Amino acid sequence: MRIGIIGGGAIGLMFASRLSGKHLVTLYTRTEQQASIINHDGLRLIEEGESRLLDSVMSKSLDEGITDHDLLITAVKQYHLPHILPAINSLDVPLLFLQNGYGHIAHLRKLKSPAVYVGVVEHGALRHDANTVEHTGLGLTRIASFKGELDRLSLVNEKIDGFPFIKSGDYRSMLLDKLVVNAVINPLTAILQVKNGSLITNAFYYQLFQELFDEISGILELENKAESFEHVKSVCMATAGNRSSMLKDLEKGSQTEIDAILGHILSMAEGKGKTVGLASSLYKMIKGKETQGG
Amino acid sequence: MRIGIIGGGAIGLMFASRLSGKHLVTLYTRTEQQASIINHDGLRLIEEGESRLLDSVMSKSLDEGITDHDLLITAVKQYHLPHILPAINSLDVPLLFLQNGYGHIAHLRKLKSPAVYVGVVEHGALRHDANTVEHTGLGLTRIASFKGELDRLSLVNEKIDGFPFIKSGDYRSMLLDKLVVNAVINPLTAILQVKNGSLITNAFYYQLFQELFDEISGILELENKAESFEHVKSVCMATAGNRSSMLKDLEKGSQTEIDAILGHILSMAEGKGKTVGLASSLYKMIKGKETQGG
Repeated sequence: MRIGIIGGGAIGLMFASRLSGKHLVTLYTRTEQQASIINHDGLRLIEEGESRLLDSVMSKSLDEGITDHDLLITAVKQYHLPHILPAINSLDVPLLFLQNGYGHIAHLRKLKSPAVYVGVVEHGALRHDANTVEHTGLGLTRIASFKGELDRLSLVNEKIDGFPFIKSGDYRSMLLDKLVVNAVINPLTAILQVKNGSLITNAFYYQLFQELFDEISGILELENKAESFEHVKSVCMATAGNRSSMLKDLEKGSQTEIDAILGHILSMAEGKGKTVGLASSLYKMIKGKETQGG
Repeated sequence: MRIGIIGGGAIGLMFASRLSGKHLVTLYTRTEQQASIINHDGLRLIEEGESRLLDSVMSKSLDEGITDHDLLITAVKQYHLPHILPAINSLDVPLLFLQNGYGHIAHLRKLKSPAVYVGVVEHGALRHDANTVEHTGLGLTRIASFKGELDRLSLVNEKIDGFPFIKSGDYRSMLLDKLVVNAVINPLTAILQVKNGSLITNAFYYQLFQELFDEISGILELENKAESFEHVKSVCMATAGNRSSMLKDLEKGSQTEIDAILGHILSMAEGKGKTVGLASSLYKMIKGKETQGG
């Protein structure tokens, strides 16, 4: 398959390196500089301390225009999506969106393509530099259909070592599950500046964890709260030693995904007339920190 | 006057150095080591970049027992007060308490002394080491009577350069004013890790500042909210470049005064059946950080 991947961040680089073994991959980057480095020096994938250089990935800056592909994967942050949409709005090619949060769904309704899929990435990935990515945590990618038949997307049936795909029947619950995990773990770890596991092991942080989950699950009107709570907790424990992406973003002084995550939930709360407390305070704390960093 | 001062922290060292010019000062420390350093090397006061060595302060460890004084000043943190009380419970000497918060008032009712005063310190002081203190912000000390006539405390009528005393008619409102200032500024700056001024200049932090003030002034049932709000804001701006004591405590991994400050307010809220939100979240964040540090 000819696969195009938009986005030269951690997720874009990881997908490009993982898929390049079986597919003809073109990686679209925001800057010409990154594309030129990748074309010149290759793409480096680090995994369990071992580094592999892959020279089959071709890279272009997005400004050069998108060529013909059998699948186009969008791996930019949700807050960059509006800048990308004009380039893909009118394409007929199958599209796969890997954003966190739920807010991007509103954009997808306007796309011309008859086959639109959404995915949730449960791998850990860390971008070291323009052409180096580390696969820090082996997980999986869940894919669901937003429009069109899921089985027409051959990717979901492929076997790629250390990079499994799982079909999901309902994009809403798939995205909501991830949203709840992100909305509870990311803001708390970012403000408290702790690894994920501390939210469970520190008795005071665990109280905040429970309160935030209660608030968010109430706003999202989750049907099975107890099960969802156990899921968030299990993710927290499975990634106990990790620093969340939001914590890392704040440390780097980068923009976070707070608007796509808590921001989205808070605007839902407003729409439903629900009261918010901790979620709203954490939102302001993160936004304030972003202002400071920028 | 023969003045005894209990506590070898920033406030104790500052009072000892400032009062030693006119009075015979004995400083009671927790450790023998600190007393021995002060007796051996003198007490060093740094002010506006200039350092002065004072050799007239005598120091003893509290375990050696308290000798006869005309005034005994207690300058330990509120959470250390219970350990000090047995040594002063049955003294007849006038007592002055310089703790933050309001919770120490409950202890004062049990004292035998007929003259008990409370003070609020609005100076900035930083302890560099066992016998060095820097007077970082010139302010004043408010003193009110808890028991006995205020004018019998000659200290309140003294003129000491750079170290003024002001009489306050009502200890309750004096302590509450300081409590509100501490309860709003300290926890927010400690969790957000910013200097006091950021709470006003950062638009998101200012929203949190307003919300926390609203919550606290509601719990304390302040009579003149608008005036009190302006007071807290003016303190924040006057100390814009300062790092709050709670922020410094967390950075050092020390215990903070959160129980004396927000803890006291939260237990009042519970007693009155008032709902709490941000105050309670901040309390848990600080307690969690203390647990982490310890």
